[in-house]
Formats: sequence, structure tokens, C-alpha cells
Amino acid sequence: MKIKLTVEYDGIKFFGWQKQEDFNSVQETVETAINSVFDNKEQIELFGAGRTDTGVHATAQIAHFELLNPELINIWKNNLGKFILAVNFYLQDKGTLVTNAEIASDDFHARFSVKMRYYKYIIFNRNIKSVIYENRTWHIAQKLDENKMHKAAQYFLGTHNLNAFRSAHCNAANPIRTISEISVYRKEDFIIMEIAAKSFLHNQVRITMGTLKDIGLGKISEDSITQLLKSGDRTKAGVTAPPYGLYLIKIDY
Amino acid sequence: MKIKLTVEYDGIKFFGWQKQEDFNSVQETVETAINSVFDNKEQIELFGAGRTDTGVHATAQIAHFELLNPELINIWKNNLGKFILAVNFYLQDKGTLVTNAEIASDDFHARFSVKMRYYKYIIFNRNIKSVIYENRTWHIAQKLDENKMHKAAQYFLGTHNLNAFRSAHCNAANPIRTISEISVYRKEDFIIMEIAAKSFLHNQVRITMGTLKDIGLGKISEDSITQLLKSGDRTKAGVTAPPYGLYLIKIDY
Repeated sequence: MKIKLTVEYDGIKFFGWQKQEDFNSVQETVETAINSVFDNKEQIELFGAGRTDTGVHATAQIAHFELLNPELINIWKNNLGKFILAVNFYLQDKGTLVTNAEIASDDFHARFSVKMRYYKYIIFNRNIKSVIYENRTWHIAQKLDENKMHKAAQYFLGTHNLNAFRSAHCNAANPIRTISEISVYRKEDFIIMEIAAKSFLHNQVRITMGTLKDIGLGKISEDSITQLLKSGDRTKAGVTAPPYGLYLIKIDY
Repeated sequence: MKIKLTVEYDGIKFFGWQKQEDFNSVQETVETAINSVFDNKEQIELFGAGRTDTGVHATAQIAHFELLNPELINIWKNNLGKFILAVNFYLQDKGTLVTNAEIASDDFHARFSVKMRYYKYIIFNRNIKSVIYENRTWHIAQKLDENKMHKAAQYFLGTHNLNAFRSAHCNAANPIRTISEISVYRKEDFIIMEIAAKSFLHNQVRITMGTLKDIGLGKISEDSITQLLKSGDRTKAGVTAPPYGLYLIKIDY
């Protein structure tokens, strides 16, 4: 039986999604909680839709696992509401919670079946930083022009070689990606970017934000995005925006 | 010289605004920082617009203090931008920051000159609580009807005896207050109440929210607000909503 989970987490509390020796990951934390619910009669393996980095938040990461033990299947298949409560009992105060669980078809895969990933990036744009929204936003003290940022963002729409917008550690063979939606808008002191694509390169959203920030400050022109895309040169794009302003908010299958 | 300050704070980090022996208050924390900037050549006293309770946040509390020392006046009167930076240096990692400072007229008083106070209350309305917005919102698991809540909220508009909507510890002689604005709306999983009045009774906003919550759940009817106002009976109104969903967001003079 395949179970599809929706998982929320505070990125600040973890060294990213992916399990690593000696580092606290969301994947391992949730796996351990699920195994506890199953009294360790089975050791499940959780597959996440995306491996978010250290500090990146998720309001709706999707993951799946396969359950093989017939006794456990029998107990839980009609009790997924109770299953969520049981898992969350073991996740208390750990910085992550399961917000939904449902039975998925046998051919479902949290990573490979993805049709679209949605991320949000939040900047806090005020001369003085915030004590209320720290660890939740990127503080930029100088006034940003969100209209310029939105205009520039539109150059990303469609299919491009995004070599200039990925980390040096990105090991994707193919740097071509398709951006389906991107917008930038202001709400009071917050500047919000929403972006959607079937898949992203490593650090792509954060480098996109770091570059749009320079456009918002008037350091580079809106249409310089075209040249950056053409150049394929990471060193010419903006900084990698910090992880704690980034949220994985939705995944479509 | 009178200085008017705008102060932001994370309510979770303090036992309220007001100075108390043995408890960490915003007032004392900011006073101490200011006195440090003045090398303790003068001990200033900070007057806040409102004494927010333990756990209540402020994005824009207003406070003032009087500076008498001519030497200090001479140094700082044309350097309030630097003054903010200096105060915030001493406030690092304390959960509060000064976001603005300006010279006020001699007859200005942060508390007595107030024309309007604006508060916001945020509920997180999802079956599972949030790890990202905890300490920032009140979690209500059952679905709330925000339209009913908004409709009911309109009964508060205008001048009423609010005896049913104040804490037993409220020592205001007069329980009559005028609500100038009130609205309730949903944004995704958040239910937001915005409310404005020249002044509020103790816990008034939180009891208002606690009562509107019961209306959103369908436990009591929208027009029961009229009867509650008439009754003047605190025990018939809803619970006092927790402080960490409440934000003091603006004060008009």
C-alpha cells in the first residue's frame, strides 16, 4: 500500500529534507515518527517531491512511502485520520508535522510523478529588520521597486538554459527548465515572489530572487535577465538569497 | 526635548510592555538600551501608547520619552537616524527593535494624545496546527465561517457598554467604548480580524475574538452579540483568545 503525505516544516529546525549522517533532516525525523507508529514492525522509506535545502520551509511538501506488512495495512488503511494524529504525536515540538495522508495508486511517486512545483519567496523590505518575521523572510533595508522586479521576472517565463541560475554544486545533466508562472508583488513591507515549474535546478529560485533584488535596487536593468540567461555565467547573476525566505507551498500531480 | 519612538516586538519574548519587578518587559528593555546610548548620563522614562499584555506582539507600538540633559540633546537632536542604530545595537537578539524616532512637540504624550489604536488578530484555521506560524497565530482546528464572523462583528461598531467584553481585572471606571472599524476576512488558512478604536478595555480585543470564534463555529448566532452587549455579563461572552495571535499594528495621533 502506498501512502501519500503532506508535510509542513520550519526549515530553520533542520539540515534540509534529505537524510544525512549526523545531521537532523526532515526525512529522517518523519520516517522515525512513522516507524514508531508502526512499532518498528516495518522500517519505511520516505520519498520526498523535492530535496529542500537547510533553512528552506515547506507548507506542503509531498512525500510517499510503501507499506508492506499486511497486519499494519489492515490496521491503518481505513484509519488515515488517526494515523496523522499518531505520527504528529511523535513529531511534537520537532518543527515538522504531517498535515494530510491518503492512499495513492501503486504507480504514484512523490518525486517522479510531479507535474508542477510552486515556491514562494518573501523579502521583508524596511530600513530596520523585523523581530517578528526573522527566520521567515529575507531582510533588505533599501527600498525595492517591486514593479521593476515583476517586469524583469517575466523574462524567465518559458523554456531557457538556466545555467547562470544554478549552484556550482548542481549536478543536473540538463540545465534547461521551463518556468510556467512567475510574479512579484508588494504587500505592505513584504515583497513576495511566486514561481512555478515542473522542476528546478539547485538553488535556482534563490539565485532568481537574488538577481531580482538587484533589479529592485536599480543596480541592473530589467532586461539584463535576457543577457544573463544567454551568458550561462553564474558569476554574473545575483547572490543566492538566504534559504529562510523560501517556502515550498504546493505540488501538483 | 521629546522623542517619539516606534517600537516593534515579539510578544513571546516579554512579560508584556509594562515594567515590573523580576519580569522582563519591553518598556524596561528599551529604556535600558536608550540609557546605554546616553552612557547613563540621564535615566529616561518611556511612556507607551498601550500596555500590551504578555505574549501580545507589536509591529508599531508608539512610546515617548523626555530628554533633559543639554549635552545629550545637542549630540542627538540632528542625529536620530544614528540614534535608532545605536539603540538597536543594544537591543540585538532581545526580541524588540526601534523602527523610527522623531522629535515630538512638547505637548505630545504617547498615551494621552492617541486618536486611534489599530489591532490585528490572526487565527490559523486548519485541522492540523502549524509549525511555521505557531506563537504568531491562534490555532483553531474546526472550520470557521468567516462570513458569519464578519457579519457578527458589525454589531460592535459604534458606542457600547463593553462590560461583557473586558477582563475581571480591568480597572477602567467607564466600560463604554467606541469601535470605529472592525472586519473579519479569510486569506487561505488564516482568519484575520482588524479592529480600531480610540481606546480599548483590558482584554477587549481578545474576548471579542474569542466570541467571534464561537460564531464562526456556529455555536451561537450572529445577532447574539447584541444580547451579550446588553447583558454586560462577561461569563456569557467567549473565551479570552490567546495573546500570541494579537498584534498592535498602528496608532494615530
